[in-house]
Amino acid sequence: MTDAYQAVAAYWAAIEARDWETLAGLVAAGVFYEVPQTRERVTGREAFVRFCADGFPGEWHIAVERAVGQGRHAASWVRWSPGDDASQSGLSFFDLGADGLITRITDFWPEPYEPSANRAHLVEHY
Amino acid sequence: MTDAYQAVAAYWAAIEARDWETLAGLVAAGVFYEVPQTRERVTGREAFVRFCADGFPGEWHIAVERAVGQGRHAASWVRWSPGDDASQSGLSFFDLGADGLITRITDFWPEPYEPSANRAHLVEHY
Repeated sequence: MTDAYQAVAAYWAAIEARDWETLAGLVAAGVFYEVPQTRERVTGREAFVRFCADGFPGEWHIAVERAVGQGRHAASWVRWSPGDDASQSGLSFFDLGADGLITRITDFWPEPYEPSANRAHLVEHY
Repeated sequence: MTDAYQAVAAYWAAIEARDWETLAGLVAAGVFYEVPQTRERVTGREAFVRFCADGFPGEWHIAVERAVGQGRHAASWVRWSPGDDASQSGLSFFDLGADGLITRITDFWPEPYEPSANRAHLVEHY
């Protein structure tokens, strides 16, 4: 159980609890958040907490599938459930400062796609 | 530098080098590989190495953006470049056995999507 692991566990617990004060205490003042798929960026603690608090209304829940932390790096795989039977995987990579605060978050929210036919003989399709 | 980190670094180095013998030595006999987005699965060392060796022809390269390992869990974010200017992010989560061999790999290959308009005022678009 590294500090980086604890930071990520606390991060998702705060988001699931909509505890924005705790979330603010986990990220650095200059935290940098990015979603490469949509080319969205948020810079700074205040803007980031507002993005989390106001950007995702509804009765969703987050369950952590995997969390890994080592030194100043961490990663997580969560399952986001918006209330019906559907759920989506979210993958996040975190950098931390020397003080243990999260300085950078890169989020990915992959969606289903059609597998390549030219490798169909090499896989099982479930 | 944990064993889990070393295993993941060696895994991507072997794939980049097309060194299938080394790759085979990094995964357990019953390794389980899954791509949730396409619902593709591969089970067992021999089938997995064949999938890697034969499923992805071409002159692609892999660069590791982040690798994190802790105990029996690890995660990586790589950039896959198929030879032209394009590149795609790949996110992988690994479980390891007590012997340090990789027992489970879950891969995600996210593609661009349109950001939600209802949070456009909360982000910068780059």
